[in-house]
Amino acid sequence: MDKVGIIGGTGYTGSELSRMLCTHPEVELAALTSRQNAGKKVSELQTFLKGYSDIRFTEKISDTKDLDLVFVATPHGVAMDEVPQLMESGVKVIDLSGDYRLRDKAEYAKWYGHEQTDAKNLKSSVYGLPEFFRSKIKNADLVANPGCYATSIILACTPLVKAGVVETDIIADAKSGTSGAGMVPSARLHHPFCGESLIPYSVGTHRHTPEIEQTIGDITKGGVKVTMVPQLLPIVRGILSSCYMNLKKDMSDEEIAKIFEKQYGEEHFVHYVKEPSIRAVVGSNHAHVGSNVIGNKVVAFGVLDNLVKGASGQAVQCMNLMLGIKETTGIDTPGLGV
Amino acid sequence: MDKVGIIGGTGYTGSELSRMLCTHPEVELAALTSRQNAGKKVSELQTFLKGYSDIRFTEKISDTKDLDLVFVATPHGVAMDEVPQLMESGVKVIDLSGDYRLRDKAEYAKWYGHEQTDAKNLKSSVYGLPEFFRSKIKNADLVANPGCYATSIILACTPLVKAGVVETDIIADAKSGTSGAGMVPSARLHHPFCGESLIPYSVGTHRHTPEIEQTIGDITKGGVKVTMVPQLLPIVRGILSSCYMNLKKDMSDEEIAKIFEKQYGEEHFVHYVKEPSIRAVVGSNHAHVGSNVIGNKVVAFGVLDNLVKGASGQAVQCMNLMLGIKETTGIDTPGLGV
Amino acid sequence: MDKVGIIGGTGYTGSELSRMLCTHPEVELAALTSRQNAGKKVSELQTFLKGYSDIRFTEKISDTKDLDLVFVATPHGVAMDEVPQLMESGVKVIDLSGDYRLRDKAEYAKWYGHEQTDAKNLKSSVYGLPEFFRSKIKNADLVANPGCYATSIILACTPLVKAGVVETDIIADAKSGTSGAGMVPSARLHHPFCGESLIPYSVGTHRHTPEIEQTIGDITKGGVKVTMVPQLLPIVRGILSSCYMNLKKDMSDEEIAKIFEKQYGEEHFVHYVKEPSIRAVVGSNHAHVGSNVIGNKVVAFGVLDNLVKGASGQAVQCMNLMLGIKETTGIDTPGLGV
Amino acid sequence: MDKVGIIGGTGYTGSELSRMLCTHPEVELAALTSRQNAGKKVSELQTFLKGYSDIRFTEKISDTKDLDLVFVATPHGVAMDEVPQLMESGVKVIDLSGDYRLRDKAEYAKWYGHEQTDAKNLKSSVYGLPEFFRSKIKNADLVANPGCYATSIILACTPLVKAGVVETDIIADAKSGTSGAGMVPSARLHHPFCGESLIPYSVGTHRHTPEIEQTIGDITKGGVKVTMVPQLLPIVRGILSSCYMNLKKDMSDEEIAKIFEKQYGEEHFVHYVKEPSIRAVVGSNHAHVGSNVIGNKVVAFGVLDNLVKGASGQAVQCMNLMLGIKETTGIDTPGLGV
Repeated sequence: MDKVGIIGGTGYTGSELSRMLCTHPEVELAALTSRQNAGKKVSELQTFLKGYSDIRFTEKISDTKDLDLVFVATPHGVAMDEVPQLMESGVKVIDLSGDYRLRDKAEYAKWYGHEQTDAKNLKSSVYGLPEFFRSKIKNADLVANPGCYATSIILACTPLVKAGVVETDIIADAKSGTSGAGMVPSARLHHPFCGESLIPYSVGTHRHTPEIEQTIGDITKGGVKVTMVPQLLPIVRGILSSCYMNLKKDMSDEEIAKIFEKQYGEEHFVHYVKEPSIRAVVGSNHAHVGSNVIGNKVVAFGVLDNLVKGASGQAVQCMNLMLGIKETTGIDTPGLGV
Repeated sequence: MDKVGIIGGTGYTGSELSRMLCTHPEVELAALTSRQNAGKKVSELQTFLKGYSDIRFTEKISDTKDLDLVFVATPHGVAMDEVPQLMESGVKVIDLSGDYRLRDKAEYAKWYGHEQTDAKNLKSSVYGLPEFFRSKIKNADLVANPGCYATSIILACTPLVKAGVVETDIIADAKSGTSGAGMVPSARLHHPFCGESLIPYSVGTHRHTPEIEQTIGDITKGGVKVTMVPQLLPIVRGILSSCYMNLKKDMSDEEIAKIFEKQYGEEHFVHYVKEPSIRAVVGSNHAHVGSNVIGNKVVAFGVLDNLVKGASGQAVQCMNLMLGIKETTGIDTPGLGV
Repeated sequence: MDKVGIIGGTGYTGSELSRMLCTHPEVELAALTSRQNAGKKVSELQTFLKGYSDIRFTEKISDTKDLDLVFVATPHGVAMDEVPQLMESGVKVIDLSGDYRLRDKAEYAKWYGHEQTDAKNLKSSVYGLPEFFRSKIKNADLVANPGCYATSIILACTPLVKAGVVETDIIADAKSGTSGAGMVPSARLHHPFCGESLIPYSVGTHRHTPEIEQTIGDITKGGVKVTMVPQLLPIVRGILSSCYMNLKKDMSDEEIAKIFEKQYGEEHFVHYVKEPSIRAVVGSNHAHVGSNVIGNKVVAFGVLDNLVKGASGQAVQCMNLMLGIKETTGIDTPGLGV
Repeated sequence: MDKVGIIGGTGYTGSELSRMLCTHPEVELAALTSRQNAGKKVSELQTFLKGYSDIRFTEKISDTKDLDLVFVATPHGVAMDEVPQLMESGVKVIDLSGDYRLRDKAEYAKWYGHEQTDAKNLKSSVYGLPEFFRSKIKNADLVANPGCYATSIILACTPLVKAGVVETDIIADAKSGTSGAGMVPSARLHHPFCGESLIPYSVGTHRHTPEIEQTIGDITKGGVKVTMVPQLLPIVRGILSSCYMNLKKDMSDEEIAKIFEKQYGEEHFVHYVKEPSIRAVVGSNHAHVGSNVIGNKVVAFGVLDNLVKGASGQAVQCMNLMLGIKETTGIDTPGLGV
């Protein structure tokens, strides 16, 4: 039984990790931090864990020597203050923030507004998207868990870029449920403001943009350019990204479908379906992709639950790989469907 | 053309007042305060007013001598600091907070947690529910505008209590859209928390309880006891209160309906309907009531838009009465329906 | 490995059963019927099952001799046409409709509008609420799976009635997500009508009323009277029932809490929590109950996911008991939380 | 006082017309048809009209000689059966369906799947978008009222195309509230299916596509190509269309804004705002447009209430022009804001 810890256990991604780990058959959630709630039982704060875990929040992880892996579920900027000492202690780390996703420090500074200060670990970090970097993740000591929008857009676009059938100028009209914005109340997330609306934000300036460009570039050995417009959907969980690309030549829906089937046919958590639907994946680590040819263009849809395949579920998938556990263990449930 | 002002023009009730007053044919919105936004145009902040008003927020109302009436749309506790000097200046006042609703200062202190410090004006204030206090409102200098839940429950219960057909022990299971909670972001109003849920809060301790008991008591010359459980609905606008009362003797649905028809048959803004629906009143100053006999009990439903008949629309209705304008002027539109 | 079948596999309760059974480690979903979709793969219709089941719908279950248990997930009236021959064939049956819930045929006729025609099996059926009828369910051949509202109200009220601290006249103001109404489109379930509203329906006439009265009566050896007002919530999954009872004597919140803790302290799927929340149980077989004393009354809240603990999850819980499997197997996951 | 009638008074656009016309100061709603509800009072069916209209539905409009204008609010295909005899009788007509929007009968047949059979009136029909065809509408006898998506996309894109600053290959990622789909229940509009999701539909095949291409082409004297992906939003009212265009040369946000300000600066119902929001226009005839430059692209947002500026409000705006009434009469209210 491997032992793992979570730094930042009260946020949405942290508590989603707790939810999955407390029923994981081969891993024990042995440490959980929260500055504000130190001393409290996790199930007191997160009542859905009643009967599943009696662990208490601590202010810090006092000792990592008994732990096999630590999840860092803190905001960007904070994560890179935590990771260095964890790495030095020899524990494996999965960082759910954006701090270790961008290889280029100048890019990081440009999009995040401050420096990436941990060059050493940045260098060895692996991007935690198992469907494309499975073997690297298995051997990684530090995994940078992908962003939620990024995962949906990369899964939807990469097969077509890789197959060379589309031009590399991608428009990603991305819509996310509100839990993607975290648990800190704000004017934008205030129900009367966003509850019956669709709110464009960070138009053209969202931090997942360079992450998507870098990753599709890495996989396809070529450059892509992403124009991304995120929009807040009045639902709690779920992302649907509509990605528009120009076809290099006339293609049919079936030809496009074949490319996706070839890419994901053997995958357990990514499926090509005719009509991808948010409800089919909510609550699960599954992502659905779909596509339609429209004249000389193709629109590819990427759909997932932003807190699961878009964050904590994908992190557990990576953890399984890093700890030599079967990839699907503990996260192998279908979406709610309805 | 009468001139009016609003103190507290950025909150939801304040901006809803602006929305109505800027198209009111017999009143000019001449002053509008906001400490934080002083100097800005109202339409800059509230883009739905583009083309309707170019008025700018000021920090204070410098001079009330040109104004005929001032709306106080500040939180309780603050309102009673503003009202005394307004009253002294001779301007008429409508207070949308709870500060002047409870006649009994001990009750106020008990439910609001601090003293009511303006005994003088409290004494002369009139409860602004036109359907029951029309003539008093016409002559009032200070109107205490009713609470949103209170309006829905009073409209649904009073006719039956007044007719003497029900016992006076009322259970009010009340559900409100989120705009009723105001525009300050909070954990409870955070979309991921409340957006797909129904949240009971202030169970048995909501401040509208004594207001309802006092008002139904005043109208019916008798005491009632209200057990009130407010619940946050995942919609922006609208209240539906389900009020349960014991019938003193067997009655039919038709007999109950007749009592309501008798009470509200001549009213423009309150209607008895078979199946009251939130959407039928949203965006309007209309309230719908309905009822069903269930064995020896009756459930009466009170439905309204919490920001209109539950707050600012009712305040404009009172203003019309106080200024000698036709009661329906400026607020005479049907609900959205869908 | 036990083998089970589902009659009526395309409705919401049927497909929710598929969702749970396809990952159940000790049971195989071996038969699945749908008249309209015979021949199709289940994962074609219900894309959330992609990768989980390749079973195809058949028109009928041709042979039950290889099956250990059959779920009947058809509408009431239809179920009692299916059950007799299943019972004769010797297979165990769980009926998710209301056909076998009411012992009194006159009551059934009164509330359902037609006769219960299978007196023989009705007599031996067991009400499938494990928290109160666990040992009977273990030995049952036919289980009548409880209604969704009924489960929420029975769990919230029974401990207090049983403890003799409340009078037996219960008001249940019950609110349900829309999936409780099934998958057939209708005017009431049409999004523009119900999506931003709260719709009272079947006021005082809902079929779960006699089921609740009978069951609480059975458990507490006494009669109760339930006044029930169902209301459609604009969410997909989740029920919150607010149940009002008169206290026989003054009691504190703590004293009431103790009664619930005593009743449910050892239960895995029912928890007493201070602030019950729909999101804490959505997607799971857990129910939360809570309570507040208000003067001489108590309000008890019953919260659950109508498709899981309110239907298919509870059915799997019963199945586990009937087949000698550990009660929590296959349904042991926490609620989504957010 | 002009007299008008509505053919098809029970659908959403028909009842929205009733809602506006019953408070219109210069027009009387004198006839209203509904086959299914003939004989019933409109306020019986549409309770939001209580106190506003006592008119009864009739099966047909028996005589048009007393009417000045008739709105046809029937589905496409049906409208072109009604319009010819109305036109012959000499009454002015506004058709809210798609039957008279496409000049090219081959295009109509291709997108609508059947023939346009009324060539005569098609020829003289005017596209009812006042912001671009005001003088033609004033003189028209038959107006083809624009589609909801079409209005939002045309308003957002035309100024930039007209100014010659963008290429003519437009991607329109369009999202609509559910009331746009009409009042007939269907699987797609069933709340459990669409209430917590975002549903792409008619991908690349939506009938508003040729209407947009034709109209922008007419205004700008050039051809454009529109790739349109409609998506169903889980709200009742409101459209936000995100329209992507390639800039011909580098431009700033301010330069783009100026183009919009120049186009719409004098308009009452269309405003350029920095952050367009659905809530700011819901319930009103206003449309908001916004824009952001992203590298060599620009995204333009078009926002409106699909039932008002996207349908019935725009029709009343056209009616005012056709009857010589001030354009804003009867529809001059701000959006709800919240």
